Amino acid sequence: MIEAYQAQCQRRVDAALESLFAAPHAELQRLYQAMRYSVFNGGKRVRPLLVYAACEALGGEPARADAAACAVELIHAYSLVHDDLPAMDDDDLRRGQPTTHKAFDEAVAILAGDGLQSLAFEVLADAQRNPHSAELRLEMLVSLTRAAGPAGMVGGQAIDLGSVGQALDQAALEIMHRHKTGALIEASVHLGALASGAADPRALKALQGYAQAIGLAFQVQDDILDVESDTVTLGKTQGKDEANHKPTYPALLGLDAAKAYALELRDLALHALRPFGQSAEPLRELARYIVERRN
Amino acid sequence: MIEAYQAQCQRRVDAALESLFAAPHAELQRLYQAMRYSVFNGGKRVRPLLVYAACEALGGEPARADAAACAVELIHAYSLVHDDLPAMDDDDLRRGQPTTHKAFDEAVAILAGDGLQSLAFEVLADAQRNPHSAELRLEMLVSLTRAAGPAGMVGGQAIDLGSVGQALDQAALEIMHRHKTGALIEASVHLGALASGAADPRALKALQGYAQAIGLAFQVQDDILDVESDTVTLGKTQGKDEANHKPTYPALLGLDAAKAYALELRDLALHALRPFGQSAEPLRELARYIVERRN
Repeated sequence: MIEAYQAQCQRRVDAALESLFAAPHAELQRLYQAMRYSVFNGGKRVRPLLVYAACEALGGEPARADAAACAVELIHAYSLVHDDLPAMDDDDLRRGQPTTHKAFDEAVAILAGDGLQSLAFEVLADAQRNPHSAELRLEMLVSLTRAAGPAGMVGGQAIDLGSVGQALDQAALEIMHRHKTGALIEASVHLGALASGAADPRALKALQGYAQAIGLAFQVQDDILDVESDTVTLGKTQGKDEANHKPTYPALLGLDAAKAYALELRDLALHALRPFGQSAEPLRELARYIVERRN
Repeated sequence: MIEAYQAQCQRRVDAALESLFAAPHAELQRLYQAMRYSVFNGGKRVRPLLVYAACEALGGEPARADAAACAVELIHAYSLVHDDLPAMDDDDLRRGQPTTHKAFDEAVAILAGDGLQSLAFEVLADAQRNPHSAELRLEMLVSLTRAAGPAGMVGGQAIDLGSVGQALDQAALEIMHRHKTGALIEASVHLGALASGAADPRALKALQGYAQAIGLAFQVQDDILDVESDTVTLGKTQGKDEANHKPTYPALLGLDAAKAYALELRDLALHALRPFGQSAEPLRELARYIVERRN
């Protein structure tokens, strides 16, 4: 079951992440505490799971993917810290806990996010933590720097902020999501595949198709849950998108059509995995889970 | 003269930087404009100069150091954007121009800073922009991720924010500066040396000694100028450190002793360059310039 696999990936990546937050100087303790707090906030580690599952789909050992799993989660964590800031989404709660700028202060939250981003790339560059050839480590770095940067995730957040209160069409909404969340999901699968040491262009292409489909499915389902779920189940304020006049799939397509679209994307993802055998089962289960989850 | 050399380095790095800010999507235009605005703000390009000068000191071609020069300047630019934010130093002006969050808005400034950081590492990882062996590019990435991150520059900013209004002793003040500005100056010299393709451990050690001395000298002189100069010459608000109760060298040592200390650090830097011949002249001139400059 995906829950057991998820718990296993979570334990793995949490152990690897844990080792990153020992402050090298007493003066840096508060910053490292804030970074640690931002990373260990009860997150489901979906992106690390994608790294491990893509690595395993190509027959790779999970231990070879630990650094990549850490790196994508560090990028994700930093993006949440900055996204929650008063000048951005202005969120006080994240998974039912105070957001980093509430638990610490705004300045520390900005710096903790900045530090987590550097750390993500440091982990990939470091031969001790990421025991692959220089060429492979660089391929991972090229992939993740692009996915995280202005042409990827950061760009998506800028588009998102610029589109609040605007009536986007489906094409514009997908450009936004492909940047904001899709790019990092694609990079997670890509890094996992690279970490297997057995990625060929055909496999990478198939996995990219899978990643693009689940990335979008994830977002469509998120929009649906924002309408249908409640604040306690979600661990964040329900109905926030609508209250903020954010463009969403249910608003654009209607709730039923949005649900049908999520299922269609799941099927597209499963179709992309046809070249793979049993080893891709975790990736398949995740595709099913994404559209069935309630939070 | 250092002014001619500086102008030459500035032209080189500005041309290389210019190519980074073409928005890949119409929707990303504002973000890329904000990044470009943050980078082309009349900065003196001291860190790129250090990259080029260290590369030349070891006999390397400047063209081999363009990517490293861009990367250190992108990190520097991002740090200024975030440093100027209301939750941090809350500065409206930078070199007489509106800071990024004033020219755009806070959210865009946060994202522009985030994007500039990713871009710095992307440039180093990219074989097209940084035409060195995979091993050398990784060495640069390890160096710059560490220098920029929580154990380096970001950590220094955290210490700085935590020390406002506190009476630091000289040791604590130097820990702060060694992180906040020293780490990136050291990395600039280190990356430049690596880019020469001719860095041996002895040369790297000597250049590190140089970089540490000028990093501190730069800071001591900055503190002196904050007391002695005026707002127009500085291009930023004069007397701001004192008004903010920031620990400074003149406050700690007295103005005369601070000036003597700056000269002592300059001599230390020149001493570290003794193994090098004429090719290290730009580095020497810079050490002299740092303690003579008026802004």
